[in-house]
Amino acid sequence: MNAKKTPPSRQTAQAGDLAQLVGPRDKSLIVRLKAGDETHTHLGVVAHDQVIGSTWGNQVTTHLGKQFIILPPALDDLLRDIERNSQIMYPKDIGYVLVTMGIGPGAQVVEAGTGSGALTIALAYTVGPNGHVYSYERRTDMQAQAKSNLEHVGLLERVDLKQRDISEGFDERDVQAVFLDLPNPEDYVAQVREALMPGGFFGCILPTVNQIITLLTALKRERFGFIEISEIMHRYYKPVAERLRPTDRMTAHTGFLIFARPISVEEPFSDESKPAQD
Amino acid sequence: MNAKKTPPSRQTAQAGDLAQLVGPRDKSLIVRLKAGDETHTHLGVVAHDQVIGSTWGNQVTTHLGKQFIILPPALDDLLRDIERNSQIMYPKDIGYVLVTMGIGPGAQVVEAGTGSGALTIALAYTVGPNGHVYSYERRTDMQAQAKSNLEHVGLLERVDLKQRDISEGFDERDVQAVFLDLPNPEDYVAQVREALMPGGFFGCILPTVNQIITLLTALKRERFGFIEISEIMHRYYKPVAERLRPTDRMTAHTGFLIFARPISVEEPFSDESKPAQD
Amino acid sequence: MNAKKTPPSRQTAQAGDLAQLVGPRDKSLIVRLKAGDETHTHLGVVAHDQVIGSTWGNQVTTHLGKQFIILPPALDDLLRDIERNSQIMYPKDIGYVLVTMGIGPGAQVVEAGTGSGALTIALAYTVGPNGHVYSYERRTDMQAQAKSNLEHVGLLERVDLKQRDISEGFDERDVQAVFLDLPNPEDYVAQVREALMPGGFFGCILPTVNQIITLLTALKRERFGFIEISEIMHRYYKPVAERLRPTDRMTAHTGFLIFARPISVEEPFSDESKPAQD
Amino acid sequence: MNAKKTPPSRQTAQAGDLAQLVGPRDKSLIVRLKAGDETHTHLGVVAHDQVIGSTWGNQVTTHLGKQFIILPPALDDLLRDIERNSQIMYPKDIGYVLVTMGIGPGAQVVEAGTGSGALTIALAYTVGPNGHVYSYERRTDMQAQAKSNLEHVGLLERVDLKQRDISEGFDERDVQAVFLDLPNPEDYVAQVREALMPGGFFGCILPTVNQIITLLTALKRERFGFIEISEIMHRYYKPVAERLRPTDRMTAHTGFLIFARPISVEEPFSDESKPAQD
Repeated sequence: MNAKKTPPSRQTAQAGDLAQLVGPRDKSLIVRLKAGDETHTHLGVVAHDQVIGSTWGNQVTTHLGKQFIILPPALDDLLRDIERNSQIMYPKDIGYVLVTMGIGPGAQVVEAGTGSGALTIALAYTVGPNGHVYSYERRTDMQAQAKSNLEHVGLLERVDLKQRDISEGFDERDVQAVFLDLPNPEDYVAQVREALMPGGFFGCILPTVNQIITLLTALKRERFGFIEISEIMHRYYKPVAERLRPTDRMTAHTGFLIFARPISVEEPFSDESKPAQD
Repeated sequence: MNAKKTPPSRQTAQAGDLAQLVGPRDKSLIVRLKAGDETHTHLGVVAHDQVIGSTWGNQVTTHLGKQFIILPPALDDLLRDIERNSQIMYPKDIGYVLVTMGIGPGAQVVEAGTGSGALTIALAYTVGPNGHVYSYERRTDMQAQAKSNLEHVGLLERVDLKQRDISEGFDERDVQAVFLDLPNPEDYVAQVREALMPGGFFGCILPTVNQIITLLTALKRERFGFIEISEIMHRYYKPVAERLRPTDRMTAHTGFLIFARPISVEEPFSDESKPAQD
Repeated sequence: MNAKKTPPSRQTAQAGDLAQLVGPRDKSLIVRLKAGDETHTHLGVVAHDQVIGSTWGNQVTTHLGKQFIILPPALDDLLRDIERNSQIMYPKDIGYVLVTMGIGPGAQVVEAGTGSGALTIALAYTVGPNGHVYSYERRTDMQAQAKSNLEHVGLLERVDLKQRDISEGFDERDVQAVFLDLPNPEDYVAQVREALMPGGFFGCILPTVNQIITLLTALKRERFGFIEISEIMHRYYKPVAERLRPTDRMTAHTGFLIFARPISVEEPFSDESKPAQD
Repeated sequence: MNAKKTPPSRQTAQAGDLAQLVGPRDKSLIVRLKAGDETHTHLGVVAHDQVIGSTWGNQVTTHLGKQFIILPPALDDLLRDIERNSQIMYPKDIGYVLVTMGIGPGAQVVEAGTGSGALTIALAYTVGPNGHVYSYERRTDMQAQAKSNLEHVGLLERVDLKQRDISEGFDERDVQAVFLDLPNPEDYVAQVREALMPGGFFGCILPTVNQIITLLTALKRERFGFIEISEIMHRYYKPVAERLRPTDRMTAHTGFLIFARPISVEEPFSDESKPAQD
């Protein structure tokens, strides 16, 4: 069995596992354990052989006597850990994207641009070994960084990284979902429609309201329906039982999430977003 | 190949597929297509044979001449569609739970209580055919409803429904994640620890701050660490390019999300929640 | 001394006072007490002579045996009570407008449009007997309603109601503050500049982001500086000590608040809003 | 005419006026203009004689050749400017407190603790020359700072600063409003009731949910009714017409606002907060 594909379900960390080393003040890094390897940190060297065989949740000690707790990472942790030179999507947004766009085990998904690969990792993680992700990026440097990040977490084999300007269109047809994380999605709505299966899921994230306005016009022109626009605010609390309160500051804005479906008919419905539940 | 396990990736709706029928004002229902079947709706009867073979995104017409658009449902749609007699979790919360708790293809997850089965469906959908969900519920009527909902969406075989008071403990050991959606999680923290792998993920959702306070005390007593408390607010916008604005009203509160990890050592860290990114 | 101008500071309700009658489920109405008068409510007739002389916070009984608690109203209560046939501003927004725009006792303020007069009441209340409000409205029916509302709360003498299209300009000069609550403030920025004292306060409330975008352009053209755009979200909690939690639903959006100052020079500053405190 | 009591309503800055000097990046300070005076800033010395007679909204130049725009300050600006050694209330909260608690021109208000005097300034500003504020503080150092801040903005004569532990009770009777900004308001609810007129307004701000829970119990014991609990979130937008979007980060929490009224009868009503409008 290939350790890369199996989530860690054992008592102890094993060679081939991803392990999160968590130090003081929740500073952490994620390593792929390999017999004989060492990881150099700001608190000293961690010998992998000391981690391998340890019970998860225990501590390991660096050559400088500093300690890290070892934990199996969640998708959330993988995303927070990646090398990046662009803004990456937040877990609060990624979770909602996955649930809303029908992305689960076995799904075929197209993404552009790849960027640092944070969403790419989330998609590859979620579609599982039987699904696949096709990720387009125009810039070679970004693509190289995404590739490195995907390799690090062992998910590269589920992804085709394509270096391409998507104004030329996508190679894929009849995929379930296309997600665009780039500044001008309005320019690619026709290309998205070609790649999507009828009734499939289109999504994107946009920082400004001007971009939403422009995209809405393009979506209506290309007969997309079921348009949903929303934003997610996430507020943390200080975990102190005696003085429970929200943190002082929070992220005010990451981006607006827009979803739509290519349909064949005029949507004969109201212009309000999903009212049933929310 | 079993149609139940394959997400719809074709141009047309096929027998065995789940199809969402969306009528005016976004009122919708989800049916499992079967040759010869009929579905009775408030707008008339839909003949499945008329849907089977139709291109997704097209319309079908009822015997009363009313029309539905047919779409492949996302997880989000499955959750909004289920029969319920209890409050169910919202997609905004479920997406974040999945991403934060390491729940992906192949995961082994324990949940209690089952309730109407909304989270159970989300978990079963996400762990895929190689993962498994163990879901505990004390009330037989709730369990029956959850079973019916799981059967409807074709995910029952990935779930063990157990009728049990979890104060007796869980049967499972070394699972990656345990999620509690019940009013008194503080009473089961020791049982959760027994079921979880070391360093695994514990999560729960609680409507009141009093419950958080009580749970925090229990988590510290049982040496859980990396406690994170947060809430997610989700605001929709009216998708009108010329007059873009948030909707007038929104859900103000569903519940607070609490996550923690069983660790073997004293957490030597600050009492602030994850500060790195948010 | 004129009772109209004096806030109630006594133990008992007196003739000439405004009294809020609060019935079951917090349904309330506000009346001006007058010896011999009666007020007809859905729960029966309240004789003012029964209220006059009663201690505030006590109950009065209608001729049908139903009860109201009698309370001195706050500005908030006056605003919630008014007759309206248009959307009115919320206390959360009005409070911030007053604090941000230098509106206090003695201020001279211009407003357009008057609408149902909710903000007019707030302005007249706040500028006190030594200040004054000039309120413009094009529609005579709205103006009549505002006049009636102002009379009801005894503040009409602090207000000049003008029936006028403000594209012709305002009569006033060198006022401290001008507030516009109308759909196209961008058309009146030059007129606002003429009415304001140099360095005075301009404010408006706008429901859509498109309106903000248009207004921003006009403000920069007319050399307004110190532009601040924000929105205020207000969430209530259920006041139950044992189960403290936010209410289920809330107002998601009332409007965006925009403030700016007419200045004589090019603002040599960043395009970020006030960063110092918030 | 006393310049201190008159808001600036002229074209030019005059001796006796408060003037806000705004430098690059919106760094500002507020000075009381006096013929012959100088103000030393990080950008050089500003001669008051150069400011006096200048049109508001113009620039003045320091002896180092740097420039400040001169503006008449709003209450908001006065609050942001004060010397402080404790957390002060935010304009978003203060505005709502004033509107909700019946605090306007002529009101008699009690406050404790004084702290750095931010709310004291807001109250004194709002009650005008015919109202009065009684502000209690146990610590002499805090009281001295508040006194200095009140003098700076010319509002000290509207305030009685009392150095006292309020467990001994307040001197005042039948005031319209009492506001507590201290950690244990539950200990003074009986004292508040004695000072308030029947049906008057009690308010406080509390950072933690534990404090709300404790206060709620005390309020019900002392027969306060019409309890309202809420929080106000304030989000700024970057004022750029071409790329309109919220700022990246915001204040997540300042405090919860709690209001209640002393009544003589059992409140026969629901435990929900004001549902009518919000």
